Amino acid sequence: MRTSKYLLATMKNIPGDAEVISHKLMLRAGMIRQLASGIYTWLPIGLRILRKVESIVREEMNNTGAIEVSMPIVQPADFWQESGRWNQYGQELLRFTDRSKRKFLLGPTHEEVITDLIRNEVSSYKQLPLNFFQIQTKFRDEVRPRFGVMRSREFVMKDAYSFHTSQESLQATYNQMYSTYNNIFTRMGLNFCAVQANTGSIGGHISHEFHVLVGTGEEQIVFSTTSNYAANIEMVEAVIPSTKRDKPSEKMHLVDTYDVFTIADLVKKYKLPVEKTVKMIFVHAKEDVKQPLVALMLRGDHVINETKVEKLPQVAKPIIFATEDYIRNILNLNVSIFSLGPINFPLPIVIDRSVALMSNFVTGSNIQGKHFFGVNWERDVALPEVADLRQVVNGDLSPDGHGTINIKRGIEVGHIFQLGKKYSRAMRAMVQDKNSCNTIVTMGCYGIGITRLIAATIEQYHDNKGIVWPEVIAPFNVVLLPINLHNSLRIKNTAETIYHKLSTSNIDVLLDDRKERLGVMFADMELIGVPHIIIISDRLLDNEEIEYKNRRSGEIQIIKLSTIVDFITDKITIGMR
Amino acid sequence: MRTSKYLLATMKNIPGDAEVISHKLMLRAGMIRQLASGIYTWLPIGLRILRKVESIVREEMNNTGAIEVSMPIVQPADFWQESGRWNQYGQELLRFTDRSKRKFLLGPTHEEVITDLIRNEVSSYKQLPLNFFQIQTKFRDEVRPRFGVMRSREFVMKDAYSFHTSQESLQATYNQMYSTYNNIFTRMGLNFCAVQANTGSIGGHISHEFHVLVGTGEEQIVFSTTSNYAANIEMVEAVIPSTKRDKPSEKMHLVDTYDVFTIADLVKKYKLPVEKTVKMIFVHAKEDVKQPLVALMLRGDHVINETKVEKLPQVAKPIIFATEDYIRNILNLNVSIFSLGPINFPLPIVIDRSVALMSNFVTGSNIQGKHFFGVNWERDVALPEVADLRQVVNGDLSPDGHGTINIKRGIEVGHIFQLGKKYSRAMRAMVQDKNSCNTIVTMGCYGIGITRLIAATIEQYHDNKGIVWPEVIAPFNVVLLPINLHNSLRIKNTAETIYHKLSTSNIDVLLDDRKERLGVMFADMELIGVPHIIIISDRLLDNEEIEYKNRRSGEIQIIKLSTIVDFITDKITIGMR
Repeated sequence: MRTSKYLLATMKNIPGDAEVISHKLMLRAGMIRQLASGIYTWLPIGLRILRKVESIVREEMNNTGAIEVSMPIVQPADFWQESGRWNQYGQELLRFTDRSKRKFLLGPTHEEVITDLIRNEVSSYKQLPLNFFQIQTKFRDEVRPRFGVMRSREFVMKDAYSFHTSQESLQATYNQMYSTYNNIFTRMGLNFCAVQANTGSIGGHISHEFHVLVGTGEEQIVFSTTSNYAANIEMVEAVIPSTKRDKPSEKMHLVDTYDVFTIADLVKKYKLPVEKTVKMIFVHAKEDVKQPLVALMLRGDHVINETKVEKLPQVAKPIIFATEDYIRNILNLNVSIFSLGPINFPLPIVIDRSVALMSNFVTGSNIQGKHFFGVNWERDVALPEVADLRQVVNGDLSPDGHGTINIKRGIEVGHIFQLGKKYSRAMRAMVQDKNSCNTIVTMGCYGIGITRLIAATIEQYHDNKGIVWPEVIAPFNVVLLPINLHNSLRIKNTAETIYHKLSTSNIDVLLDDRKERLGVMFADMELIGVPHIIIISDRLLDNEEIEYKNRRSGEIQIIKLSTIVDFITDKITIGMR
Repeated sequence: MRTSKYLLATMKNIPGDAEVISHKLMLRAGMIRQLASGIYTWLPIGLRILRKVESIVREEMNNTGAIEVSMPIVQPADFWQESGRWNQYGQELLRFTDRSKRKFLLGPTHEEVITDLIRNEVSSYKQLPLNFFQIQTKFRDEVRPRFGVMRSREFVMKDAYSFHTSQESLQATYNQMYSTYNNIFTRMGLNFCAVQANTGSIGGHISHEFHVLVGTGEEQIVFSTTSNYAANIEMVEAVIPSTKRDKPSEKMHLVDTYDVFTIADLVKKYKLPVEKTVKMIFVHAKEDVKQPLVALMLRGDHVINETKVEKLPQVAKPIIFATEDYIRNILNLNVSIFSLGPINFPLPIVIDRSVALMSNFVTGSNIQGKHFFGVNWERDVALPEVADLRQVVNGDLSPDGHGTINIKRGIEVGHIFQLGKKYSRAMRAMVQDKNSCNTIVTMGCYGIGITRLIAATIEQYHDNKGIVWPEVIAPFNVVLLPINLHNSLRIKNTAETIYHKLSTSNIDVLLDDRKERLGVMFADMELIGVPHIIIISDRLLDNEEIEYKNRRSGEIQIIKLSTIVDFITDKITIGMR
């Protein structure tokens, strides 16, 4: 490819609305352009990378015997009504009607469609297990699309669905997908990990997420300091140390705190350890619960875990945090929220396990501008319902009993689920078993966010000059930068000869034949992240030599013109490892 | 691939709702399944073919230097409002709103999106010409989806858009696309032709369609018997022979025709040549025309050409044929339509060129149950406005002045347009020219209906046993049918050895390892259309031999086991030519 007949579309300036580095670099390198909020066009450079990632995923899926199909993007409502998700799925499901007023949706996922296919086409246990996959454009009407293709509305996904007549068979395919995902992310050279995960709205009981580990990741991953334990923080139990609550040693007394409005103020003014403070959080109750409000109590330094709170039977799902007006209206107490506390509180409270272990603590008094100090459970107020409500923190005990917790950040790029019979039961997907009896099939499903994976790779592979692509998915492997191309016949001939030699050796080579200064060409190619850069100059050609620069290491070498193909082939082979 | 781990999904019965052979065979061969009207899932066999066709198209497009991009399926309304098509495009444009009530559409085509990209990314004439293409899923909300993927709502299309600063440059790329399309359809072994075409709702002034020629095609293509002239019948002029109208030789007289209701009745009862009869057709006038009805007159044996009629300035576009009630209401004449005629008619009439040449003809009298015989223009009634209104017929003069017309049927699989400045002017897509002045770019666009192309190929390549794939797009090149695989170790080992040898020689091979009778396996493979079939039997293995059958020719050969790879490789090479 020649840059003069290509669309580079690089940008010098950092686009104002891009928050994360991958989004900035994808725009600056001319990989993508936004068409509407969360909707992107893939420009030539970006598409080359996308296709290479797709190829790796397709190859690894084919290697496992998974079979590729292609399901429609536009799905009729019927199947989603059958599974129950037409009503359950929130506004992320884009629903519309066609010219005949029939209801359709843009597929964010394809469990219903593939289950319908299987119930029609597969009749015997002998045909199972089967694992189908597709690489396809999907749509999710995100409330707040952000970070470019990291959280976009239109995106490319590899989704796979497996069908079985036994849990053992499902487990075997699940394990196979687990190791296939490891292969895929390893081939791409990523620093990633698989973690236990919550199954969320897809359903099922066992699932793992695959995260690319980067400090800017939206998700928090919990590791054990001594074992292989790894899980999404959403589902990590905060294990209670075996220590009991200290005995009361202070008297409970009321303190004026009229000029204190936050936990931090309280800690600062009274030189309290934050571990002696508590805070109350209010969420809406489920509709059929008598009290419309659920009061929760956490330690001052702890953060609520929404997934855990949603598991409380009295709490509305998805979680709704109550506004101050709503809380005051229900409680009918004439105090600010910060002055609320468990003593003489008009509603039942649920307290976190850590709070249950506290003694001599400080809490709101339900009297405006006053706190109780030296409060003790049982002595001063009955112990409320206790539950695991908080996010774990570094240093907590690991739930597997080995070591303590170490939290990192990650970007979720893959998710595998054991769905079980959630969809097959709702849609009556059955096959005949060995005894000619109908049996409902068991399912697994396995997704990789292809477009997000590209952004995550950039988060891990960049420097201050731009993107540093892993060799396997680089848009081009080599770029030729000839100095003075348009005036020197020798430069032109040499550039064309090298271009021809590399192209015919099956190497993705780009020739920068623009009338630009070397500095401009260099900056563009380092921004785009071409791994190997060759500079052709009259000065070096006098010795039959050219200059090579490695994008990643910055290493510069002067090499003989005659060895160029072998040299580059070696470099690429090393890069591919 | 092994059939036991694959989804064949062949069907013995012809599905009731499938009208055309390609639709029937695609269902029976397990290539596609309908999810909703005009919306199909591509099953494994079908997808393999789809991917092979896509590869051919991509390769040929890349060869021309066209650059692949990927534009979104979901497009915001803004750009279509800018081009004017948001309102102009009919109900085939599926419009919807997102969760924020913003207007969007499912892209049936991408002129607006690419034009927006170019106006943002390209600033100088030096960067042009550029030709972008994508292979992508599109949606058109057809009023009557039919014939499977031949006229579906969701479909795969290769669309390309080129940008230029001169007509010469546009013409050059247009010519290149013309020959690229020839290459693509030739590589697929199709009997096709390029024809001059109407530009329709896409716009522009010059265009060619590419048609696969089959008797079941929806379109009529006009050829000259002696020249290279070829055009879609929509736009073929009916050339008037240079002969003048015969002089009147009969007296005009009224005849009772109360028991005559059609042209055929009239011809039969009065032994008239059909060329002496005329018929009247009524269409709605444009809204701003005084008379709400336009009356047209054609010879009894001629058919109206809607494209031509739509070009009359007084006619509503798209054409609306008037109902009998509507006509009676406007005319206020108490006679049936068949009795209407030009003499004393209350509205202006437009007559076809052929009608203008008639003399001594028969026509309705505007008196119930009576016709005038021996009517002559000018003598009996003034000659009305004359226009070219009819479809040409076999034997008409070719419009290029060479030979006469021969009409065939075809399926449109490609269409190339010189768009000119229709979109670039509306959307202000400009670049700086040599003199640093802004100039509006000139555009071309080039489409291939990938999914329809597959159906058209089947229309041309099938027999009474099923599909007969051209080698280049066959889902598998070879299938192995072992007899008694599950009981004979020798058969099993031989089958596995051949399977391994062919697979490692980069040949797409399928091993049918189902527990089925040979007849069942054979029927499935002939239905699917695998070009080369190998039967492995104990009888022939005694002589180290196997049986080969060619799907297309039916030729059977007994060949030595040791020569199998070379033999098949040769066969495939021949097939690929």
